[in-house]
Amino acid sequence: MSANSAFSKLDALSRRLEAIEHAQSMLGVDEAVMMPVGGGEKRAEAMATLAGMYHEMATAPQVGDWLADAEAEPLEEIQALALREFRRVYTNMTCLSAEFVSRQVNARIRSEQLWRELRPTGDWKTFLPAFEGIVATAREEALLRADVLGLTPYDAMMEQYDPGNRVADIDPVFAGLKTFLKGFVPEALAHQQERLARRPLKPLNAPFPIDRQKALGLVMMEAIGFNFDHGRLDVSHHPFCGGVPTDIRMTTRYTEGEFLTSLMGTLHETGHGLYEQNLPHEWTHWPVGRARGMAMHESQSLFVEKQIARSAEFWEWAMPHVRETLGEEAIAGWELDDVLAHVHFIERGLIRVDADEATYPLHVILRYEIEKDLIEGRLAARDVPEAWDACMREYLGLSTIDNMKDGPMQDVHWPSGALGYFPSYTLGAIIAAQLWAAIERDHPAARDDMRHGRFVALNDWRRDKVWCEASKYSTPELLRRATGEALSAKHFEEHLRQRYLA
Amino acid sequence: MSANSAFSKLDALSRRLEAIEHAQSMLGVDEAVMMPVGGGEKRAEAMATLAGMYHEMATAPQVGDWLADAEAEPLEEIQALALREFRRVYTNMTCLSAEFVSRQVNARIRSEQLWRELRPTGDWKTFLPAFEGIVATAREEALLRADVLGLTPYDAMMEQYDPGNRVADIDPVFAGLKTFLKGFVPEALAHQQERLARRPLKPLNAPFPIDRQKALGLVMMEAIGFNFDHGRLDVSHHPFCGGVPTDIRMTTRYTEGEFLTSLMGTLHETGHGLYEQNLPHEWTHWPVGRARGMAMHESQSLFVEKQIARSAEFWEWAMPHVRETLGEEAIAGWELDDVLAHVHFIERGLIRVDADEATYPLHVILRYEIEKDLIEGRLAARDVPEAWDACMREYLGLSTIDNMKDGPMQDVHWPSGALGYFPSYTLGAIIAAQLWAAIERDHPAARDDMRHGRFVALNDWRRDKVWCEASKYSTPELLRRATGEALSAKHFEEHLRQRYLA
Repeated sequence: MSANSAFSKLDALSRRLEAIEHAQSMLGVDEAVMMPVGGGEKRAEAMATLAGMYHEMATAPQVGDWLADAEAEPLEEIQALALREFRRVYTNMTCLSAEFVSRQVNARIRSEQLWRELRPTGDWKTFLPAFEGIVATAREEALLRADVLGLTPYDAMMEQYDPGNRVADIDPVFAGLKTFLKGFVPEALAHQQERLARRPLKPLNAPFPIDRQKALGLVMMEAIGFNFDHGRLDVSHHPFCGGVPTDIRMTTRYTEGEFLTSLMGTLHETGHGLYEQNLPHEWTHWPVGRARGMAMHESQSLFVEKQIARSAEFWEWAMPHVRETLGEEAIAGWELDDVLAHVHFIERGLIRVDADEATYPLHVILRYEIEKDLIEGRLAARDVPEAWDACMREYLGLSTIDNMKDGPMQDVHWPSGALGYFPSYTLGAIIAAQLWAAIERDHPAARDDMRHGRFVALNDWRRDKVWCEASKYSTPELLRRATGEALSAKHFEEHLRQRYLA
Repeated sequence: MSANSAFSKLDALSRRLEAIEHAQSMLGVDEAVMMPVGGGEKRAEAMATLAGMYHEMATAPQVGDWLADAEAEPLEEIQALALREFRRVYTNMTCLSAEFVSRQVNARIRSEQLWRELRPTGDWKTFLPAFEGIVATAREEALLRADVLGLTPYDAMMEQYDPGNRVADIDPVFAGLKTFLKGFVPEALAHQQERLARRPLKPLNAPFPIDRQKALGLVMMEAIGFNFDHGRLDVSHHPFCGGVPTDIRMTTRYTEGEFLTSLMGTLHETGHGLYEQNLPHEWTHWPVGRARGMAMHESQSLFVEKQIARSAEFWEWAMPHVRETLGEEAIAGWELDDVLAHVHFIERGLIRVDADEATYPLHVILRYEIEKDLIEGRLAARDVPEAWDACMREYLGLSTIDNMKDGPMQDVHWPSGALGYFPSYTLGAIIAAQLWAAIERDHPAARDDMRHGRFVALNDWRRDKVWCEASKYSTPELLRRATGEALSAKHFEEHLRQRYLA
């Protein structure tokens, strides 16, 4: 590849963009972990300026010329795949006009600020005009994207988060899962009630000193394969996994009264971290070198949290470590079933982020159905509370009609204009179970490995099938290549049955 | 000022440059405080790319046009001062050719790497060829700068660090100080010996737990005026003061065996931090809004460390805080004179960074004399060891001729190509004493204030006379405006006499 080729120009540009992203990413981490309150204003200014420079560089007209020219150049296979991703990213970044983006940013800022103010009291009426503005611009965005991408409006919105995800494929999967869960949740709850009647939930022997909890998290992270030469664990109010692939910054938060929530959260983020740490190192600066998308990323965190860290086999290995690190008295007299009763505890609730793996998909499917209808014009913004309440009553037997705070005002996604993102969460859960089934098929000792704290084979499989593939393929294609199957909830349903009805 | 004026274009450019500097600064802090070892390679790549983008943007040919056009525009007074600094920075950044800079960067990298490798064994012979390369490129740089700036070569080098500093002004000041110190140091040492014979040095009652030391540092920083809404204190191997004015990141390091060194280091960096935190907030993005230069910056750290935190009056106030925070037993039975014996302890030594305030200037003057001769061609690189040894013997009565490690190979400055920087350290000490004298003249209660832990008036004076002036004036002009005098070592000499001979 000559230094003057169009592809080389894209390559050089992507190195500059990577440097800006590196800065943005680390500044974001610093803001959450280290920054004193008075640093916020200038930080926001610097971040906005860097974002503007990034956008200007990434969408400059000559980039379009380089793409067209590179498409006529002789390329190696990986370069051709890279070029396809360069094109996809460029198209997604340039399909909205500057005038529209500026209007949308204003609507989003206004709506998100108002939401932060009004959420505590659930004042939907005051929030509605801003929300109507959000829905109107989201519809406009969807139409603009749909036009350029040749997709339906909602598919065009999902395309930003998970390339290749289509309503036509997801609708039947979600519909089937919904039917399953509407029956499964009551059955699992009844089963749990019986189990707890026989063997009551043992209380945790708090307090658990935070330095001990942190030590336990580090032991588990390391065992599961997190590389501390290329990452670290800190504390922030909202746990996240940030940084860059060579330097992953994970956070968690602790409370002395309880250690399981923080530990499970840490392991969830570890799943994200493993994906990033194991992306191919040679082309981190190309879009094709990035993690595939939100659903696949969530599948990796849920794989570690739900498939590994909430399994009985994992706890066979983990309990001695808990005793060793938190002290014998932390879970004095506990048997395996006592800890499983905690990590498998399920209940119906109003709040998505507090939901367990059995009820969570119903929260997501509700949002998916509503936001699809909003985008495609079948539902008006003002009718969301009734639609929400109807779904909640049908899916979980709970009503939110008098509680907007814990109903349609609970999530930041819509107020900030992110429509099309919600399905990724449950697609992640489905994919995680599907990957587990494929691993067990290829590596029958998988469960036994966990019993002995051996995670190498589990990681090797995902490195080979998912992590190293980065963004070479669309989300459905990557899944099909990894598992030999199209998206299917059957493994997830089987996983739930095994865990909650056995 | 219209949005299309040349000045507005410079203003807009400076906001973008400020965003990159913000990122560079915080990435630098993160690297020293947080980054895991494996993050280094990509971090270096990102930093180099950002530096390249910065240089490209700041030195673009159209910037020269904007400067020329803006110089013909009607400007407010502060804008005119800002424009003068824009011009100065642009001239200093553009007076070296790209070809030269690339050659110099290579020479510096080679030399600094080699130095890191060879310093532990003091292998001067192997290091010499690289050092000769450094001296040759530094001479070339000095001539290029001198030509553009209309200065002598060494003045042109100092101009980068302290605008307005001239050999013609500094030579007589340093010569007088050298003569003074050659007599003063033996006298002060003899005086110290007598004092210690009467009242032996009391050992510190170690260990001092690190969390207690940190708490003590925070108490002192806050009392002295550091704003923790706009900054924080962390740990790094080499203590520094970084970040941005609205978010100052200071570091220190601790050892359990001793607390005074770390505390004095923390207060030294606090002096830097106060300067940055109190720069004018409105034009932080303009070069004129930055701190004036290295000498003035060092004067602020030395003001807090030497004038305040090593004074008897400060310790009258501080001792109860030490007892309260470190525990009664930390300095059990100590009186004021016992702590002063520690913080005023002086001795002859080979190493600049370990030197006390009485001997430090001799280390600096030695380097100043040698590097001036190197730059102006009166001394060859290979003759540095003999010159160094001769000075050390004359100034401090110590020889380094068989010890290159603790002689000319001890500092990173020359191996990394920074010639012209050393005088700033001692100019800082001289200016700090000069500022103190001016404050005491304007505010006779200054010493009494310290006895009661009152630092507001001391800070108000410096805010008014130094901090808020930012880079509106050259270093000598700023000093003259603040104190009513030109640079003079007499206050520094008087300070030493008062402290060490009384």
